[in-house]
Amino acid sequence: MILEQENLNIVLFQPEIPQNTGNIARTCVLTNSKLHLIRPLGFSLDEKHLKRAGLDYWDQLDMKVYESFEELRQLYKNSDFYFSTTKGKNYYDDVHFKQGDFIVFGRESCGLPDEIRDSDPEKCIRVPMIKTSLRSLNLSNTVAIVAYEGLRQIGFKNMK
Amino acid sequence: MILEQENLNIVLFQPEIPQNTGNIARTCVLTNSKLHLIRPLGFSLDEKHLKRAGLDYWDQLDMKVYESFEELRQLYKNSDFYFSTTKGKNYYDDVHFKQGDFIVFGRESCGLPDEIRDSDPEKCIRVPMIKTSLRSLNLSNTVAIVAYEGLRQIGFKNMK
Repeated sequence: MILEQENLNIVLFQPEIPQNTGNIARTCVLTNSKLHLIRPLGFSLDEKHLKRAGLDYWDQLDMKVYESFEELRQLYKNSDFYFSTTKGKNYYDDVHFKQGDFIVFGRESCGLPDEIRDSDPEKCIRVPMIKTSLRSLNLSNTVAIVAYEGLRQIGFKNMK
Repeated sequence: MILEQENLNIVLFQPEIPQNTGNIARTCVLTNSKLHLIRPLGFSLDEKHLKRAGLDYWDQLDMKVYESFEELRQLYKNSDFYFSTTKGKNYYDDVHFKQGDFIVFGRESCGLPDEIRDSDPEKCIRVPMIKTSLRSLNLSNTVAIVAYEGLRQIGFKNMK
C-alpha cells in the first residue's frame, strides 16, 4: 500500500468517554484521517471498553498521543487548525476545508478551554442546533458531522 | 410554543443498541426532527442504558413506535423516503433533501433487509468510506452525517 497524505486530522482534546473515542477512531479509519489525542485521557488506551469499541480495527488506525495541545500545535506550525465549539463564531459549513486540515474537539463535559478558543476566534466553528435545555450533540456525532462536511468539500478523496 | 413541521423524519428499522438510539434521539431533539422506531427493538424503551443516554431530554423528543415498516410507510404515503445503506446506488450528498423527508436506517448488525432496499433502489443512498476490513461507521454517526447533510440543504431551518 502506498502511503499518502491523510484526508483530515482529527484532534480530541482530553477526551473522557472511551466509546466516543472508539467511534471516532472508526470514523478516522474509514475516512483516511489521522487521530490525535491530547492527554490526559479519561481512560486507558487498552481499556476494555475502548477495545470493545475499537479493537478489531485499532491496528488500522493512524494515531498519535500528545502531552499537551501546544506540543501538537508546534509540530504542525504551518497547518490550518479549526476549533469545534458551541461558542464558535462561524458555522462549520461556512468555512473552506482543505486536505490535511486539523479539526480540534473538546471534552465531552466542558468543551475546549478558553485559551485554545481565544487563540484564533476566526477558526472557531459550530454545528447549528435548536435552542433547548439539552447541551449538545454527542461528541462522536459532532466529529462525524464536521469531518464529513470537510470530506465532502474535498471531494471524498479516495473514498468513492 | 407553536408546533411546526419537523425538519426531517429519522426512521430506525429494528435498532439493536440502546446507546445508539439514545444518541440519535439527542440528534433529533437538537435538529427538530421526528424519530420513528420500527419494532422489534433490541432493548426496552425504559431500559437503564437508554435512559442513561437519553432521559434528561426524552420528554422533548417527538417519537413514535411502529409494528412494521409497512405500517409507517402507509401512514406517510405521499412522503419521500430515502434508505441509507452501504449498498446504496447514490451518494447521500448527491440527492436533494427537502423538509419533511424520511431517512431510513437499518440494524447495526446487518442493515436494511433486501425487500426494503429493493422497493426503491433510486432512493438508496450511501455514505462514502475507505474500503477496509472494517464494516461501516457507527449507526448514530451515520445518522448524524446524513441528517446534517439534509439539514444543510434545507438551510438549517430554525437552527441558526
